[in-house]
Amino acid sequence: MVYYAGVDLGATNVRAVVAEADGTTIGVSRRSTPRGPTGIDVTEGVLRTLRQACGEAGIAPDRIAAAGIGSIGPFDLAEGAVIDPANLPNSIDRIPLTGPIGKLIDSDEVYLHNDTTAGVIGERFHADRNPDDMVYITISSGIGAGVCCDGEIMGGWDGNAGEVGHYVVDPRGRLTCGCGREGHWEAYCSGNAIPDYAKLLAEDDPTISTNLPLNGSDFTAKDVFELAGEDELADYVIEQLAHWNAIGVTNVIHAFAPIVVSFGGAVALHNEELVVDPIRERVSEMVMTNVPEIRVTDLGDDVVLEGALASALTEGTGDRQRLRS
Amino acid sequence: MVYYAGVDLGATNVRAVVAEADGTTIGVSRRSTPRGPTGIDVTEGVLRTLRQACGEAGIAPDRIAAAGIGSIGPFDLAEGAVIDPANLPNSIDRIPLTGPIGKLIDSDEVYLHNDTTAGVIGERFHADRNPDDMVYITISSGIGAGVCCDGEIMGGWDGNAGEVGHYVVDPRGRLTCGCGREGHWEAYCSGNAIPDYAKLLAEDDPTISTNLPLNGSDFTAKDVFELAGEDELADYVIEQLAHWNAIGVTNVIHAFAPIVVSFGGAVALHNEELVVDPIRERVSEMVMTNVPEIRVTDLGDDVVLEGALASALTEGTGDRQRLRS
Repeated sequence: MVYYAGVDLGATNVRAVVAEADGTTIGVSRRSTPRGPTGIDVTEGVLRTLRQACGEAGIAPDRIAAAGIGSIGPFDLAEGAVIDPANLPNSIDRIPLTGPIGKLIDSDEVYLHNDTTAGVIGERFHADRNPDDMVYITISSGIGAGVCCDGEIMGGWDGNAGEVGHYVVDPRGRLTCGCGREGHWEAYCSGNAIPDYAKLLAEDDPTISTNLPLNGSDFTAKDVFELAGEDELADYVIEQLAHWNAIGVTNVIHAFAPIVVSFGGAVALHNEELVVDPIRERVSEMVMTNVPEIRVTDLGDDVVLEGALASALTEGTGDRQRLRS
Repeated sequence: MVYYAGVDLGATNVRAVVAEADGTTIGVSRRSTPRGPTGIDVTEGVLRTLRQACGEAGIAPDRIAAAGIGSIGPFDLAEGAVIDPANLPNSIDRIPLTGPIGKLIDSDEVYLHNDTTAGVIGERFHADRNPDDMVYITISSGIGAGVCCDGEIMGGWDGNAGEVGHYVVDPRGRLTCGCGREGHWEAYCSGNAIPDYAKLLAEDDPTISTNLPLNGSDFTAKDVFELAGEDELADYVIEQLAHWNAIGVTNVIHAFAPIVVSFGGAVALHNEELVVDPIRERVSEMVMTNVPEIRVTDLGDDVVLEGALASALTEGTGDRQRLRS
């Protein structure tokens, strides 16, 4: 009997899962992502997590035939490593992944994906009709997409296909993105951006009333959504987010012609009614081509981990016809 | 010896080329696209053009092993036909292509692509390093893209991948696109749209001077570009076009991560300095990921025809390693 593994390396947690060839989970493990001091410490944290999942499954790591990884980026794809990750301490400049994991499981079959690509692989694998054309969009601390078109998972030569959070949506460029450029989608609508955007909208109209602590302590995107329906500014922010999100999603649809667009990430997962429903309503008026089904992932916070495992099970594709059981 | 054929079906002309397996042209033909009354008349015009190219090459049509077609759309891909083409008379509702051409050449190997997809296949085939990741963008009567990512030509289940002319670039939606929606890239920057956009900008600022006949006879995009450097309104229009084009191209790059972006279409081909050079300058400031080479196709008006032929030569891919000679 052979086994398969998935690893989700995030800025906060590392998770691993071990499964049988049909996808049945037999071991899971999770720990906090090591904060360094070096990238090797993170690699060792990943290996420990995977070893622990194997232990729970009662198998030796070398019984694993293939592993998939969904990880924060950016990557050196040739070396199978994360380089200069934005959300970990600066001392971490390089996290080797495919080499050390391949050595642990004694297999060359290790698939490294960014988290959104793992997301679309997981969504495809678990979707009803296993569609060949779908997009997974995360609205979380940032915004990005994983794309499957014509049955092919799109990576791009440098792994940068689907960087749609950096679509320019506002030609006036009022807010500056974390990447330093102006007017990008995630500079308005990501979890990290929403508080700044709320402050900007409040400055535009000083008569608008709010209980958000604009001049006091920090507040979060969650605070904005929690005030929905009872706070003038929060409602206005939520309406404007729908405006920019609909433009971003329309431009995703016109790029990739998906049959299904699936949303994940904390902002979308926890605010389906306030974030995803308005996108669905607006996009149907704005898209010239076929309007896809727009949904929230059923996999919740597991979408990257499940996608990493699905990648291992299906040779990096999420295509159920390539299951080896 | 086996031969290969390419067909370019445009709204104005039909062209055909016959070549040897290494791509050496041995016959070409061209005629005006029949204006109906039915789609079958267009099909017959295509077949006559292809027969004539075979005659010039001195071979019987059934010596052709495979044919590629680059055509106006939209398509019924399952049937290999054009349906309800926008730029031909309304009586033309259906133009069968792959079936009749396959019958003429006695081969099932017929590849049907929209013109931008044929464009990227031709550009890839003829490019120096035959890159796996490139985009062809046409700025002509409309705007659209053909995409090759990870060595795969992107079609989409309905053939609508790369419909980037319908990217929303102006959230204020001041101009309405031919598709009926507002703020789309091609509503501002396509050859058909530029005169309307010039009139809008003139209305915004009645003090701006111009020799364009704003209230008189019609004028064209060409008239605007011909006045560059000597007309205040024309220069302002050209600057604003650069603004919107740079947003559109930035969003193409963030979607598909190309190594090369190649432009074709009359507006780009005839105005490299006024249209493409400004895009190159602006995009380098606006793109977060690797900035691709931005160029104008060397194939000129032949890009779709050459792409159709390259598709036949390389099993629909433009990948020179798949040449069968």
